[in-house]
Amino acid sequence: MKKLLIGILSFAAVSAFGVEGMWMPQQIPSLAAELKKAGLQIDAKRFADLTGDPMGAVISLGGCSASFVSPDGLVVTNHHCGFGALQFNSTPQRDLITNGFLAKTREEELPAGPGSRVFVTTNIEDVTARVSGALAPSLSNIDREKAIDRNVKQLVDECEKPGGVRCRVASFFEGSQYLRTTQMEIRDVRLVYAPALGIGDFGGETDNWMWPRHTGDWSYLRAYVGKDGRPADYSKDNVPYHPLHILKVSTEGVNPGDFVLVAGYPGRTFRYRTAAEVGEMQSYSYPTTIKYATDLNNILRDLGKADKKVEIANASRIKGNDNVLKNYTGTLTGFNNFHIVGQRQKREADLAAYIASHPEAAKYKDVMNQINALHQQSIANEQRDTVLSWILRSSPMLGQSITLYRLSMEKAKPSDLDREGGFQQRDWPRITEGVTRAQKSIEPASDRAGLRYFLNESQKLPANQRLAPIDAAIAKAGGVEPFLDHLYANTKVGDVAQRKAMQDETTAQLVARNDSMIDLVAAIMPLSLETEHNQKELSGAMSKIRPMYMDALRASNGGRLYPDANGTLRVTFGQVKGYTPRDGVMYTPKTTISGVLAKNTGSGEFDAPKAELDAIRANKTAGYVDPKIGGVPVDFLSTVDTTGGNSGSPTLNAKGELCGLLFDGTYESLGSDFVVDENITRSIHVDAVYMLWVMDAVDGAHNLLREMNVPVHFGGGAVGAGK
Amino acid sequence: MKKLLIGILSFAAVSAFGVEGMWMPQQIPSLAAELKKAGLQIDAKRFADLTGDPMGAVISLGGCSASFVSPDGLVVTNHHCGFGALQFNSTPQRDLITNGFLAKTREEELPAGPGSRVFVTTNIEDVTARVSGALAPSLSNIDREKAIDRNVKQLVDECEKPGGVRCRVASFFEGSQYLRTTQMEIRDVRLVYAPALGIGDFGGETDNWMWPRHTGDWSYLRAYVGKDGRPADYSKDNVPYHPLHILKVSTEGVNPGDFVLVAGYPGRTFRYRTAAEVGEMQSYSYPTTIKYATDLNNILRDLGKADKKVEIANASRIKGNDNVLKNYTGTLTGFNNFHIVGQRQKREADLAAYIASHPEAAKYKDVMNQINALHQQSIANEQRDTVLSWILRSSPMLGQSITLYRLSMEKAKPSDLDREGGFQQRDWPRITEGVTRAQKSIEPASDRAGLRYFLNESQKLPANQRLAPIDAAIAKAGGVEPFLDHLYANTKVGDVAQRKAMQDETTAQLVARNDSMIDLVAAIMPLSLETEHNQKELSGAMSKIRPMYMDALRASNGGRLYPDANGTLRVTFGQVKGYTPRDGVMYTPKTTISGVLAKNTGSGEFDAPKAELDAIRANKTAGYVDPKIGGVPVDFLSTVDTTGGNSGSPTLNAKGELCGLLFDGTYESLGSDFVVDENITRSIHVDAVYMLWVMDAVDGAHNLLREMNVPVHFGGGAVGAGK
Repeated sequence: MKKLLIGILSFAAVSAFGVEGMWMPQQIPSLAAELKKAGLQIDAKRFADLTGDPMGAVISLGGCSASFVSPDGLVVTNHHCGFGALQFNSTPQRDLITNGFLAKTREEELPAGPGSRVFVTTNIEDVTARVSGALAPSLSNIDREKAIDRNVKQLVDECEKPGGVRCRVASFFEGSQYLRTTQMEIRDVRLVYAPALGIGDFGGETDNWMWPRHTGDWSYLRAYVGKDGRPADYSKDNVPYHPLHILKVSTEGVNPGDFVLVAGYPGRTFRYRTAAEVGEMQSYSYPTTIKYATDLNNILRDLGKADKKVEIANASRIKGNDNVLKNYTGTLTGFNNFHIVGQRQKREADLAAYIASHPEAAKYKDVMNQINALHQQSIANEQRDTVLSWILRSSPMLGQSITLYRLSMEKAKPSDLDREGGFQQRDWPRITEGVTRAQKSIEPASDRAGLRYFLNESQKLPANQRLAPIDAAIAKAGGVEPFLDHLYANTKVGDVAQRKAMQDETTAQLVARNDSMIDLVAAIMPLSLETEHNQKELSGAMSKIRPMYMDALRASNGGRLYPDANGTLRVTFGQVKGYTPRDGVMYTPKTTISGVLAKNTGSGEFDAPKAELDAIRANKTAGYVDPKIGGVPVDFLSTVDTTGGNSGSPTLNAKGELCGLLFDGTYESLGSDFVVDENITRSIHVDAVYMLWVMDAVDGAHNLLREMNVPVHFGGGAVGAGK
Repeated sequence: MKKLLIGILSFAAVSAFGVEGMWMPQQIPSLAAELKKAGLQIDAKRFADLTGDPMGAVISLGGCSASFVSPDGLVVTNHHCGFGALQFNSTPQRDLITNGFLAKTREEELPAGPGSRVFVTTNIEDVTARVSGALAPSLSNIDREKAIDRNVKQLVDECEKPGGVRCRVASFFEGSQYLRTTQMEIRDVRLVYAPALGIGDFGGETDNWMWPRHTGDWSYLRAYVGKDGRPADYSKDNVPYHPLHILKVSTEGVNPGDFVLVAGYPGRTFRYRTAAEVGEMQSYSYPTTIKYATDLNNILRDLGKADKKVEIANASRIKGNDNVLKNYTGTLTGFNNFHIVGQRQKREADLAAYIASHPEAAKYKDVMNQINALHQQSIANEQRDTVLSWILRSSPMLGQSITLYRLSMEKAKPSDLDREGGFQQRDWPRITEGVTRAQKSIEPASDRAGLRYFLNESQKLPANQRLAPIDAAIAKAGGVEPFLDHLYANTKVGDVAQRKAMQDETTAQLVARNDSMIDLVAAIMPLSLETEHNQKELSGAMSKIRPMYMDALRASNGGRLYPDANGTLRVTFGQVKGYTPRDGVMYTPKTTISGVLAKNTGSGEFDAPKAELDAIRANKTAGYVDPKIGGVPVDFLSTVDTTGGNSGSPTLNAKGELCGLLFDGTYESLGSDFVVDENITRSIHVDAVYMLWVMDAVDGAHNLLREMNVPVHFGGGAVGAGK
């Protein structure tokens, strides 16, 4: 751990905000000199133009990032981002997850499933004045929070009125600034191509977050719109969307030291959380999540062993939990390795010293104490709140029930602006799609098994943290098992047709059904609302104090600051570079197909398709070999600063061409949501050259290569014919 | 595995004997140009002078290598080579194995235990003419083998006559050449210093054969002789031996690319075994040994869990089996990775082609067929022979019994030259010491448990491979368990005093004891002798044909050839160099103390002593830091060609100074007894700088540092005072 230790020292020596950055596009022009020095060959100003080249081609799938790579709306993203579409179209008889899929013609492209979206960011504007600029200082915390919430909804509502767009007002710098993002929302998304699981998820959970890596984590979708060019629901008559800009796919590959840039939608980071907040995560919320996700996955896995149908139904949930698990476990290690709490304590001590020695900063004197006091309030009921959230998460049926019940409550409100976020009119279609999509994951025996575990957990809560409605329901039935008997014998929530009907019912109508699941969520609801109210009150208080904290930090740090990730479009840059994970070991920054062969066991997680193994063994690689490494490159490492949500982000080279797809971070980087270490923190990309080689030499996706205007080497007699 | 594949290709491309070499000292002058080019700064001719500098300082401990590092006979070797001495002097109350040991004065030095030896090679001479030069071609195979055996014994006998020396006639190049080695045999060896187990065996079995490595694998002994300067049994009146030459211990450390040379006593390699022979090892003998050693160790470990005394008694056997296990498992992997059988088949095909195309080589035409036919004979009873050898190995008591019984048989022979090797007069003192030493490992419950397993194995043998005397004994008792009851209830072999008495008894006297163990070995003996006879007959046949095979190989390869390792003094050279164990990973060639800290868990195999951890944390390192790696170096990798028996060998730098101790190979190198790959095969050395730092800053072995004439940095007020 030499380099790790050195890393921490060097981190302490440079500015705490100097080596990393998930920059807002509008900040990029101010970094032009730095980018040029780093190797960027195109004008940095271009990155601030969201409808220009290349940012116009960078899109969100909601949870993942992606990019347009052909004038006919062809989208490339990660395999794990297209996984839902593969699952949606898979049956035990036609297992697209395992075998992959290639539409040789447009007609063969498959609907990616309800709720699949392509979001094209078309505008970002500062709306701070309208969100929080005119709030009376006298407002109570809860009223302040409600006012902000209402202002945000109003701004979204106005923005979405014209239709075909999704708008969002996001908080930056901990509520210091509010920006409204407008995104064109394409609703007809189709599955075009994904390699076999043995390429797209080669290495599986074993290699997840790991280097050296040999995963071909890509898939292709296509965006369709109505004949009028506007977003439309799925229809056979829809036509491919023609994006304003596309990314040119580079065939050149990358070399160690090369400049790379990633544009995408990082989800969430915690770079500005306090020592006390990070300490709570380290001591409670991360270990608890790890325990619960582990236990739930063990339950789900066991049930899938006997029945392929059950296995498929639970696959997506298990995969999600696994990802959380490895992330949380690694982050917990990172908490220790990087001494994150200690670093935050130091930052806070430094800030206190700065405030004490700068008269103009005297106004920040009490900021830290106030934040800490609010934090203490926020965790007063954390055990109870945690178990409740897992009760709902463990049972997709219960999750659907609470969504439908809450929907009925919110629908009853006279004004859409009064409705809770997520239950406004704009959200209803998404809820409808969710009701359908959820059916793939509803498997009553698994549902019951997961719920049983968490009901039993609720019975272990200490006296001051009890979940009264759960306790009452269990007591009434005479124990957890009789309660589960009752719950699953007297509900129709598992029936998609019934759920569709429930969507349009009032709360009274739902209650009148005497459905056991609905009864349970009705009983839980008052507690949920109380918790929500308390959280809002705290948010209102935090929204006054945290911007001051950010101001203080910015002042004490000379002004250069990027905001925490919040799911909005960001740009990060760095270089192709390996690292030293531990004393005596160096990870080189590129892997090759020889490593696929070496890792391949022929079963389980390391089971590359025969066609690929044959191609490797036969040296069917002409045109794709990197002479420096003596083979076709597979994945590469870089220093770019990314997190969950960045998956599928295009990786651009110095010319602004797509040279890879971001798909993971390294295990040693976990903790990077909290702190970045230039010696250790690395992102993992699939090399565009590997993608093109597999498409050409293994999967025969020559139609797509021609569509992207890249050379075909193994197209047989038809080489180039399609161009 | 990219480099692995490339390695294999490059191996095939260069001469099969070009990149490696365990050279005989007398071959070194002929390599002078090559050595100079590689970086050697002293005259290569010096290595042929066994009584000169530096070879006069290189010694054997019998099974391990070592070197003299002070004019007062101070010997440095590996910790695992001094382990027996630590075990011999340990009790549950005074656990030197765990805590280490330092004699601050000569008086505190402890006898290293019976049978501990220092062998100083003083002469090597060619005796081929007298061994096999005058044998009549008409001799039958068995008579030929007996004649060779007798000639060898005669040569040894003559040599040892003056006393104080051990002589050995060893076969080189598969019986092409016989060399007689004369070694001064020092019998009073004492334990001087060993670090705690948490340094000397840091990483334990987990890190054994592994890189990155952080083991401080050294210990110090001292050779004592009588006041007349001649070898003598232990006596308080003995005085330190004054070697003719000592190695200067370098404080400079090594850098990647530096020339290094290792002189020592490699035990055994199989570089000239045939494809069929290697194939048998891969398919039968290696997998079987792995299974049996694993099962036996599990049995011994379980028994040690409840009782510290049992644990100590079995420690040495378990450690030995573990080492075999990791070696055999890795070698088995190497068989596959390096396609060793395939390489041998290719070598044999190339040889056949050479013979076919070279009229002068026609005499070799039938060599391969003859060797293969003999090999088939040799494995006819391999299952039976294997189980019998494990029956004796599993039970130290049975092992002692067969030794004592055979000793009585051999003693009865009129001429010492007729006695079987290992039971001649010259061997009697060693047998006597073995009888005493064995007591440390005799633990009847463990003995019985191990034997039970192999008796049960004997009952599974196929009909044509039965062990008739074992079958008869078990049948007579009415089963394995009643037989064991009888065996352990009616023997005195576990009693050291009884065994000492037995040493001097005739076979008839032994039989008259009606000791159950002796009865069993008496019943087994005819079968053992029959097996021995068959083996000798085969050896006689092989001794005619294998030298022809070597001649053919030499001729087809242009003349440059080194002999397989055979426990005689050899020299190998290379450079400090890392390697690529798999795609995307590079092993750098040096580790540092930061890695000790990172690996340390505070218990089990990674439990460095507090004093060391404190010294690392407090940066108590002045004078020992390698600025290139930012810390005190620990271990390093090199390309030198070594095997078991080389353990403890001095590693010399370009000036001929001791810069480390060879102690291991890497896991990826396993298989190197059969084939060497310059890209993969690496040896592991403990860095002399680490050794000196621990002695200075952690263990306070300042007396020894002063004795070796190296600076003391942390000796307090007494720094340099001892000089």
